[in-house]
Amino acid sequence: RLFGGLVLDVKRKAPWFWSDFRDGLSLQCLASFLFLYCACMSPVITFGGLLGEATNGHISAMESLLGASMTGVVYSLFAGQPLTILGSTGPVLVFEKILYKFCKEYTLSYLSLRACIGLWTAFFCIVLVATDASCLVCYITRFTEEAFASLICIIFIYEALEKLSHLRETYPVHMHSKLDFLTIYYCKCEAPTHPSNETLRFWESNKINVSGIAWENLTVTECRYLHGEFQGPACGRNGPYTPNVLFWCCILFFSTFVLSSLLKKFKTSRYFPTRVRSTVSDFAVFLSIVVMVLIDFMVGIPSPKLHVPHMFKPTRDDRGWFINPIGRNPWWTVLAAVIPALLCTILIFMDQQITAVIVNRKEHRLKKGCGYHLDLFMVAVMLGVCSVMGLPWFVAATVLSITHVNSLKVESECSAPGEQPKFLGIREQRVTGLMIFVLMGCSVFFTSVLKFIPMPVLYGVFLYMGVSSLRGIQFFDRLKLFWMPAKHQPDFIYLRHVPLRKVHFFTVIQLICLVLLWAIKVSRAAIIFPMMVLALVFVRKVMDFCFSKRELSFLDDLMPESKKKQQLDDATNEGKEEEVKL
Amino acid sequence: RLFGGLVLDVKRKAPWFWSDFRDGLSLQCLASFLFLYCACMSPVITFGGLLGEATNGHISAMESLLGASMTGVVYSLFAGQPLTILGSTGPVLVFEKILYKFCKEYTLSYLSLRACIGLWTAFFCIVLVATDASCLVCYITRFTEEAFASLICIIFIYEALEKLSHLRETYPVHMHSKLDFLTIYYCKCEAPTHPSNETLRFWESNKINVSGIAWENLTVTECRYLHGEFQGPACGRNGPYTPNVLFWCCILFFSTFVLSSLLKKFKTSRYFPTRVRSTVSDFAVFLSIVVMVLIDFMVGIPSPKLHVPHMFKPTRDDRGWFINPIGRNPWWTVLAAVIPALLCTILIFMDQQITAVIVNRKEHRLKKGCGYHLDLFMVAVMLGVCSVMGLPWFVAATVLSITHVNSLKVESECSAPGEQPKFLGIREQRVTGLMIFVLMGCSVFFTSVLKFIPMPVLYGVFLYMGVSSLRGIQFFDRLKLFWMPAKHQPDFIYLRHVPLRKVHFFTVIQLICLVLLWAIKVSRAAIIFPMMVLALVFVRKVMDFCFSKRELSFLDDLMPESKKKQQLDDATNEGKEEEVKL
Repeated sequence: RLFGGLVLDVKRKAPWFWSDFRDGLSLQCLASFLFLYCACMSPVITFGGLLGEATNGHISAMESLLGASMTGVVYSLFAGQPLTILGSTGPVLVFEKILYKFCKEYTLSYLSLRACIGLWTAFFCIVLVATDASCLVCYITRFTEEAFASLICIIFIYEALEKLSHLRETYPVHMHSKLDFLTIYYCKCEAPTHPSNETLRFWESNKINVSGIAWENLTVTECRYLHGEFQGPACGRNGPYTPNVLFWCCILFFSTFVLSSLLKKFKTSRYFPTRVRSTVSDFAVFLSIVVMVLIDFMVGIPSPKLHVPHMFKPTRDDRGWFINPIGRNPWWTVLAAVIPALLCTILIFMDQQITAVIVNRKEHRLKKGCGYHLDLFMVAVMLGVCSVMGLPWFVAATVLSITHVNSLKVESECSAPGEQPKFLGIREQRVTGLMIFVLMGCSVFFTSVLKFIPMPVLYGVFLYMGVSSLRGIQFFDRLKLFWMPAKHQPDFIYLRHVPLRKVHFFTVIQLICLVLLWAIKVSRAAIIFPMMVLALVFVRKVMDFCFSKRELSFLDDLMPESKKKQQLDDATNEGKEEEVKL
Repeated sequence: RLFGGLVLDVKRKAPWFWSDFRDGLSLQCLASFLFLYCACMSPVITFGGLLGEATNGHISAMESLLGASMTGVVYSLFAGQPLTILGSTGPVLVFEKILYKFCKEYTLSYLSLRACIGLWTAFFCIVLVATDASCLVCYITRFTEEAFASLICIIFIYEALEKLSHLRETYPVHMHSKLDFLTIYYCKCEAPTHPSNETLRFWESNKINVSGIAWENLTVTECRYLHGEFQGPACGRNGPYTPNVLFWCCILFFSTFVLSSLLKKFKTSRYFPTRVRSTVSDFAVFLSIVVMVLIDFMVGIPSPKLHVPHMFKPTRDDRGWFINPIGRNPWWTVLAAVIPALLCTILIFMDQQITAVIVNRKEHRLKKGCGYHLDLFMVAVMLGVCSVMGLPWFVAATVLSITHVNSLKVESECSAPGEQPKFLGIREQRVTGLMIFVLMGCSVFFTSVLKFIPMPVLYGVFLYMGVSSLRGIQFFDRLKLFWMPAKHQPDFIYLRHVPLRKVHFFTVIQLICLVLLWAIKVSRAAIIFPMMVLALVFVRKVMDFCFSKRELSFLDDLMPESKKKQQLDDATNEGKEEEVKL
């Protein structure tokens, strides 16, 4: 029946709706909200900045902030799985870039064409909801899910480090300077010796009297504006060498990471009562950010800071908050938009559903159930709204979602000394998600506070999120087995029942898939990445021929409900035993 | 009988002499030797530098290097406990400073007077050996020993951090610089606007034509030499702001510490076979130093380096390698030297013996026995030699000795997974000590290699040594109990038999003693510090009235052999039980 899955989802989630707010009244939720607010702000702003560069300011930081906030609030309120955090993803950025370039070449209105594509995509997604296509997630087994999650985490870690190393270009360092020559080092602005035609034209059009400029006294910005040249032994390639900033950024980056990790681990230390420890542990990242911001402020080195737009208005003056889907484009573009919209639909569907699968995984022991159809429905609706308003699109962000879930873990208060706390479940509620995105929308009003947050601190938080999300991924546990002598191997259930050789074989296949995915992700074909994730599902199907059903039940044990029941029916004794142990 | 103890020591140690060399043939000894060579070089050079400043170059880095090497080689070859590492101590430096100031005031020859005092001190020490005074070490219980060791470790950590923060003055940082003004910042040399009388005299005496100097083009050194002034927005208090160096030093310092700690811990990880792990762990600090030196070299920031004298000759040309104990001083100074010599004797005796007690402690399970009389005898002989040659004095250095012992720990190759390796003993041998000091003597010949070692890396090693020496000190375990809820307390034997209240009381007394010692150590009265350590012995005696004998047997269980036997005789069942458990 049409929309059958959606109706079931709503029926399943509706009874929990009030409890979703009641359950949010907890100190842990406050900690989670503060942490994730800081963590979400930076990607949204950075993504907006990148989009702004790619689209010549048609969609930029302000639009990104508004879009994320609106989509996030609506999603947190009505989605089937409010633990998922929405964010911006790489393929979307690639798509927008290609689209903008295309529109510029054929002199089409980018925002209008984009609105058409967005509306078609929303329509297709709703068709997918109506036909209960989300049921296909049952083919996403642990194999696919872990390969995808590992990749996203590794990319997250890689990008955090890359962003840090990217600072080398913004803040060049005079590596081999001689301290004795410090009195002789300088980097001054000078009139260009051979001004290019472009420069001459610029001077003419701005009516700049070149001979009247005191070049020597210009600041860096003035010099750049007037097309001057930097001359002197303390000059790098594109300007003066910047003292201290780069190394200070490195210190901030690694200190944030180490401090967050240590504070998080404080929960299992022997000191102080349980309540104090778990509070410190919950607030670990937020505390680290606060401490590092204070240190950065006191030291005073001009490190790069988080810059939030401080006015609530579109970045360009020639656009408003409503985009006409036809505008000045010919009428047939509306129909032609169907083709890119199909690509976008797969892109959105895969990104959204695989993250939802990861959030809903069995190990999290969620009590309030999932709602894949409802999730996709909300994403589709907001995608349409964002398109018409000329805002970027947002789908489930893997690392942020995993981090969100991890920050809401409830553990038993251990009573016996040295006892490991027992995992009890996740605080399932809508309050943290709602608060994060409400506050994000309001960020425009407290730019004066946010501008004290150094970017390297946020990069450090990303590193922490990437590394901590990797924990708990079985694929990594299995990777580690390669370097572990047999006698030191932990007592994993699959090691008991599957020969080590087979376990390694399984891991190697997964690793190859990961490397291929990575290659696609970083290549120019990044846009087909979501489809390649689909290919993983087929790889997994082929593996049915290499491994026995029993081996796969141990190595790839996460199955959707329907399948699992079926499996349970023909389960052997060992199968049941495993069920009990997990 | 005269020299009875010494004879017994020689008799006890002689049979082990050859095995002391055979047992040194091990990869672990190589690791230990490389680590401690790096660790010993810097304090010897730094101490020499400080002495050089204090004595106007009469005794400086070259003398310190030679003295350490000679004393170390002889001591390693013939001492009763060759695991002890000799080094320079704070009180000796204070004493030399006072003596130099005194000699300057009364126009006496510093080196000659020093030789007299040294010879007297050596004589007194030999008298102490002859009278078997070293037996008094039996009064140094765990209480005294741990208070002393804790203090020295804390001072070590404190000094490592202080040295790092001291770099702020050598490498001032422009904290609140504006990146936009980098083109305008400069720091140039200028002729002093109001030259002081001293400056005028200097110019005159060196026949400097002031008006002929191109001040603007002078380097920092030239400017300082010619008494110029630094002018410009990029100038600190005493010269130009130094870019990058300070932060780079911080990075080197903490990276070395973290890397050493991580590599050391690698032994108990699950990866790789035991042999690989234990080798990496043994070479942890040396590997860290090598890695950090390479990184520093590649980055190329001019961080401060280890500067070793490159010529084998006395620092000042007006002295040789033999000092006449009378020289140009009046004859009665030889007799007057007895008084400071008495002070020095206590100083040397306490520093030497308490460190020896710590090295010989029961937990180390040494098999080849101790030799307090022989130790002191060797120190005394070399003290005399050093005095006559005008070299500084060396006694047992606590932290270096503990580190040496720790680096030679032999542990069982654990077989069961997850099993903690069992401590088997220490590699007791003379090879590491001998090699360290032989190579130290030869350091003059490879200054070209040593000059690549950045000082912050060595400071990081000190931090590591201080922190790792603190581990295993029961006093710290007890301190931690204050913050630990009862249920999380580890199963210490004394917690089973002594009420917690009493344990805390014991800890508080020890803490107060430590704070008092610290106050004395950092005050101007630092020279009486060794005597104050004696006072600890009396404090411990007084505690016999506050605690029952049984309680003390648990809290302060380290007793010298003779006493322990006596104690064992009237031991209760619990006492025997404890004996078995330990």
